[in-house]
Amino acid sequence: MRGIIVTPGTEGGARLAELEEPERGEDQLLVRTMALGVCGTDREILDGRYGWAPPGRGWLVLGHESLGRVAAAPSGCEFAAGDFVVGIVRRPDPAPCVCCARGEFDMCRNGGYRERGIKELDGYGAELVTLEPEFAVKVDPSLGLLGVLTEPTSVVAKAWERIDRVKYQACPPLASALITGAGPIGLLAALLGVQRGLEVHLLDRAREGPKPELARSLGVSYHSGKVADACREAEPEVVLECTGAPELVAEVVQGSAPATVECLLGVSPSGRALIDVGTLNNELVLENDVVFGSVNANRRHFAAAADALAAADPDWLTRLITRRVPLAAWTEAFDKRDTDIKTVIDFTDDTR
Amino acid sequence: MRGIIVTPGTEGGARLAELEEPERGEDQLLVRTMALGVCGTDREILDGRYGWAPPGRGWLVLGHESLGRVAAAPSGCEFAAGDFVVGIVRRPDPAPCVCCARGEFDMCRNGGYRERGIKELDGYGAELVTLEPEFAVKVDPSLGLLGVLTEPTSVVAKAWERIDRVKYQACPPLASALITGAGPIGLLAALLGVQRGLEVHLLDRAREGPKPELARSLGVSYHSGKVADACREAEPEVVLECTGAPELVAEVVQGSAPATVECLLGVSPSGRALIDVGTLNNELVLENDVVFGSVNANRRHFAAAADALAAADPDWLTRLITRRVPLAAWTEAFDKRDTDIKTVIDFTDDTR
Repeated sequence: MRGIIVTPGTEGGARLAELEEPERGEDQLLVRTMALGVCGTDREILDGRYGWAPPGRGWLVLGHESLGRVAAAPSGCEFAAGDFVVGIVRRPDPAPCVCCARGEFDMCRNGGYRERGIKELDGYGAELVTLEPEFAVKVDPSLGLLGVLTEPTSVVAKAWERIDRVKYQACPPLASALITGAGPIGLLAALLGVQRGLEVHLLDRAREGPKPELARSLGVSYHSGKVADACREAEPEVVLECTGAPELVAEVVQGSAPATVECLLGVSPSGRALIDVGTLNNELVLENDVVFGSVNANRRHFAAAADALAAADPDWLTRLITRRVPLAAWTEAFDKRDTDIKTVIDFTDDTR
Repeated sequence: MRGIIVTPGTEGGARLAELEEPERGEDQLLVRTMALGVCGTDREILDGRYGWAPPGRGWLVLGHESLGRVAAAPSGCEFAAGDFVVGIVRRPDPAPCVCCARGEFDMCRNGGYRERGIKELDGYGAELVTLEPEFAVKVDPSLGLLGVLTEPTSVVAKAWERIDRVKYQACPPLASALITGAGPIGLLAALLGVQRGLEVHLLDRAREGPKPELARSLGVSYHSGKVADACREAEPEVVLECTGAPELVAEVVQGSAPATVECLLGVSPSGRALIDVGTLNNELVLENDVVFGSVNANRRHFAAAADALAAADPDWLTRLITRRVPLAAWTEAFDKRDTDIKTVIDFTDDTR
């Protein structure tokens, strides 16, 4: 079988390799991969800037945004052949911290977690993979290939759950949310915000093309100017920063009203913008602001993501996936094009 | 009667003035001031760097950390002559924001609040003051002058309440807290942490003197080194930063473990330390950290503060008040001495 393998820490070593088919353990699922979404983390791994191979081995199967169909399952488990499933990415620390011990491994406190396709465990970018049932989540078969959006949606489902818990901040129930960045995470965060009945505002530098169109289809107000101007118009109780652009992060922290919850979801380049610590501290203290960062997701968030996608308009979701690349041409998935939102490697497409 | 008046925006204009006795409205309490605590905000107002006079008038009665005894009360209200009372500092916006409308005026979102002794309303630094019963909080008479610690305690009571609400973060119940800065706020935060049954660690640069002694009397571990070292030893789920020193704020945000709640309570000077925004963002995102600033307190927090002080060891509280200055010598309260923790102007002391 074919699989995309990388050499963590090395740039340019990735290739499509012929691998041995995995042997299913008796408690495991065997899953035939249908699709693999790609994101900034995969790009960092390809560039040799992130990622860890399994101990004692130099290479790693890439891929953490999965979708597959069960080929074989243990008898008596909740999965059966043909089910559409997505694999959870993170595994708890084998010597679990207080959070991992409670199933909240997305909040791992000691860094001992492992992640499929990222840290010490092979990813989902191979034609066949094995998966433990407790780390598999069923997705609605009517979604077809759109189920591959479950992992990025799980990240925003977690963010919304945490917003709910810190929102004491804003005192009254949430009414308005501002989201910066209309990439896959920003758009999926907007979808979940609309599903919660919020007035959602989306800000991105793109002034035309699929991003403002997708926002409008969702009934979301679209902004292209400064964060502070959007905040004045939207009066959000919560801002979700989904770009990681340091200038925008600084604008979000400094440009929002008192008692705002600011949720940071993007990863940043370093060395691009400096901020005065005293000014930042005073902004947070004197405005009673909450800023939190959020990454990864646990089983509860994957399940919430599967529900959110099943409840969404499939035509809208289809427009999020702006390119599908056959496995044989997988490298093209990492080309950057202006019109890209989410690119997916289609394992069911045997062309080329 | 005498009162301490300041000219906001002007340095050095403060003086002890002979003022007209206030006329009690029929729904108001008349309160004879016993003591006034002083803090950094008072110092900023004296230096002309903060504060707003009432509209149409150039001067303001200083003072927001109050303690007094009721001299006259409306009939049928919960207060009677002789009661020990503390005045709440903030008043909701007359055109209330969503938070002010719900009594959560400490979280005011539009900046329209007023504050006694700070913003547009005369403070408690006069021999007689009027006070609306809904902004008065009874304190245990057995505390005597120690009741003047209620306002700073209300600020930490609010901080702990908010920590409880964001602590999802840390998943398991809080077990360990690190507090930076052994000033009045840090020590009172430590007291409330101990009252909650937590293992409390206190970090301050003072290596000897009353601060480490007060920590030890409370059963708190005392640290004098780096935040990161204290975090490794204490493994706190929450850090309360009570100094505002920019270098320490940066250490707290960068030196704590993943999934830590960081509560900022100090006010900083600007221009002393720069931080890279991208690095800060990645620290928060990849570690799932929560940072929040907290200032001010509402009625619920003042009531919690009064309860916390009533439950504390009065000998320990007595040692927090390191200097008492008679009203006639009020300027001495603003001298800075190395051994100062909390300085109080004693209105009951008629010497000098």
